[in-house]
Amino acid sequence: MLKFGVLSTDKKSAARTGIISTAHGSFKTPAFLFCATKASVKGLSAQQMSEEKTQILLSNTYHLMLQPGEDLIAKAGGLHSFMGWDGPIFTDSGGYQIFCFGHGSVSCEVKGKRGLQFGVRKAGVSINETGASFISYIDGSRHTLTPERSISVQKKLGADLICVLDECTPFNVSKEYTKDSMEMSHRWAKRSMDEFFIDDSSSRQGLYGIVQGGVYPDLRKESACFVASMPFFGIAIGGSLGASKPQMYEVVNMAMSHLKQIDKPVHLLGIGAVRDIFNGVKEGIDTFDCVVPTRLGRHGCALIKSSYWKDAQEDVHDREYINLSKSCFKEDTRPIDCECECETCRRYSRAYLHHLMKAKEILGLSLIVRHNVRYMNDLMGCIRLAIELGNLEEERSKWMV
Amino acid sequence: MLKFGVLSTDKKSAARTGIISTAHGSFKTPAFLFCATKASVKGLSAQQMSEEKTQILLSNTYHLMLQPGEDLIAKAGGLHSFMGWDGPIFTDSGGYQIFCFGHGSVSCEVKGKRGLQFGVRKAGVSINETGASFISYIDGSRHTLTPERSISVQKKLGADLICVLDECTPFNVSKEYTKDSMEMSHRWAKRSMDEFFIDDSSSRQGLYGIVQGGVYPDLRKESACFVASMPFFGIAIGGSLGASKPQMYEVVNMAMSHLKQIDKPVHLLGIGAVRDIFNGVKEGIDTFDCVVPTRLGRHGCALIKSSYWKDAQEDVHDREYINLSKSCFKEDTRPIDCECECETCRRYSRAYLHHLMKAKEILGLSLIVRHNVRYMNDLMGCIRLAIELGNLEEERSKWMV
Repeated sequence: MLKFGVLSTDKKSAARTGIISTAHGSFKTPAFLFCATKASVKGLSAQQMSEEKTQILLSNTYHLMLQPGEDLIAKAGGLHSFMGWDGPIFTDSGGYQIFCFGHGSVSCEVKGKRGLQFGVRKAGVSINETGASFISYIDGSRHTLTPERSISVQKKLGADLICVLDECTPFNVSKEYTKDSMEMSHRWAKRSMDEFFIDDSSSRQGLYGIVQGGVYPDLRKESACFVASMPFFGIAIGGSLGASKPQMYEVVNMAMSHLKQIDKPVHLLGIGAVRDIFNGVKEGIDTFDCVVPTRLGRHGCALIKSSYWKDAQEDVHDREYINLSKSCFKEDTRPIDCECECETCRRYSRAYLHHLMKAKEILGLSLIVRHNVRYMNDLMGCIRLAIELGNLEEERSKWMV
Repeated sequence: MLKFGVLSTDKKSAARTGIISTAHGSFKTPAFLFCATKASVKGLSAQQMSEEKTQILLSNTYHLMLQPGEDLIAKAGGLHSFMGWDGPIFTDSGGYQIFCFGHGSVSCEVKGKRGLQFGVRKAGVSINETGASFISYIDGSRHTLTPERSISVQKKLGADLICVLDECTPFNVSKEYTKDSMEMSHRWAKRSMDEFFIDDSSSRQGLYGIVQGGVYPDLRKESACFVASMPFFGIAIGGSLGASKPQMYEVVNMAMSHLKQIDKPVHLLGIGAVRDIFNGVKEGIDTFDCVVPTRLGRHGCALIKSSYWKDAQEDVHDREYINLSKSCFKEDTRPIDCECECETCRRYSRAYLHHLMKAKEILGLSLIVRHNVRYMNDLMGCIRLAIELGNLEEERSKWMV
């Protein structure tokens, strides 16, 4: 039932369009996966996600194994049934949250905000060849996540696309640490795969291997070749992506240079700013996930196309969103984007959204998140069309300044 | 354009069905008005309210005049356009909030929780023949609300049904205070009406007079007769409704005994528990409003029919809702109500809603509020049908224990 096929390729870059078929329907790539971390996208129902043309959701094994627990979700008929979403679902392995709570997050790394020193892990997180041990943020109970347990949890959750357990290293560790960690992650990948194939899950779920190697070209090459050599359904780019956007683009390039025209879908973990998506697409990435579109929405920020900035006096470098809480929107009776067909833009003004944010009405968050969801889905649709038409660079200028 | 007509009457009580036609469509009575206090129902869009069969919304003049201000809303095309709701809207005068923030709330009174002593007003609230002066809860600025200003604000907001300014007295004041206050509210009602008729608003908006008189039968009679004698479109029962439910029922009866079979719609301000609605309907009340259905939802509580309690071991006296945060719902894969056709009950289990509440996901609040909205709309629909069929008492037993 699971299948990936390439539909078209770009002549000027490694960009391609494709289709991933799952037991819960097909979706077109390049695609964006929205984070339904705890089996819910912030403020939006599965039905609303669908109305805004969402193809696929991503949920987090770490959060769901702690609350409500994988057994409860299995009893409820699996994650699709539990959260009322009939379409494809991707789950991560749970490792990222454990290590990121230990080290700091990828987004902090990319933004250069990491303040933790090398080797300093948050109290309660320990790691060895067997797996990772950590303390629940909910009730302080101790849990161990091994490659086998991660796969077992993900089988119970029943997502269509699942991941091997890996150690997600921070950017500021030594090459030696990164190499040792990568080699352990490779052994974990084999153990994950063994666990995956002990029953017939492989007919219903697609397993992704994860390319490690930090910021080191030779390690990225070794890891990419290792993962590509194994019978995974898909390949994810993980681990440290560097301390800045330019370095992240380099790291993606390092990994992708060894995965050119591979006949498997390639996912870039945790990345989803518009400029990063254009960069990744050109490198041949098929899918992306990121909390940013929903997180921005919850803070009153709406994603907006480059045309918005054409008359702006301010420095618009890197600007991808507007903050509707700002007083300049108080009397602005236009929608966020008059060309956007999302429910929010069809019905509500910036002035109304500004009012809702000021009045602390939760409807404001839901409506802005909703716009951002549609924005990302429209973006990916336009990227797919542009790849087919061979005008990706022109398309890019419509979305970014 | 504005019109009220009685469609049918109950043989065993003063209950009746009717229809109110406004410039923004008609709605059937008895009807429940949902509080969109600050131009938003908590967590639900106008579209979602409509999908759950909502007929009419109520917004609060007090909140909207302070934020975002009536001029901004007028500039945005009025409240309907601003909040994206095409159906009828009712606004109160703003007086209730000023006096309730001074004295304590009606719901506190009815629950017997009022702790303020007679004559003690919150700092900053003062009242005289001209109107009421108060301090904004948003920025500390001083405002004055006169009968003329309240009508002027409500004209700018552009609701279909609007109210005269009245003083809402607390239950524990003397008869003398209540009488003086009532007489002033009558003078304010006349001033409100003069302001209302100075332009052609009367063709687009319906003005409600408000019956005062506290818990005193002779005062309620005097006020009911006064209000009924004036050319108001509708009549609202306001002021102190007593310190307990039985007293509230008495007060409603006092007022309604002088308004029997009146050819104007009668609204009961701020009341909306299921048992109170059945009581009010039998007294001849046509419309109700209350924050309870949406407030309950925001706290994880879902309104539920009496059939739910038939096997319950616990004391179910007066119980109208279940708290989905309770651990007994953790593994409950049934919908809140398997007969309910709301979006929430069609798609989500109690277990999922419990999980969302535990995980503090705002989707949980929205989904439970959504159920409660549909519940109230279904309740009112069933009440209307029962009045037509003459089986209101049998219908009551389906909704209440």
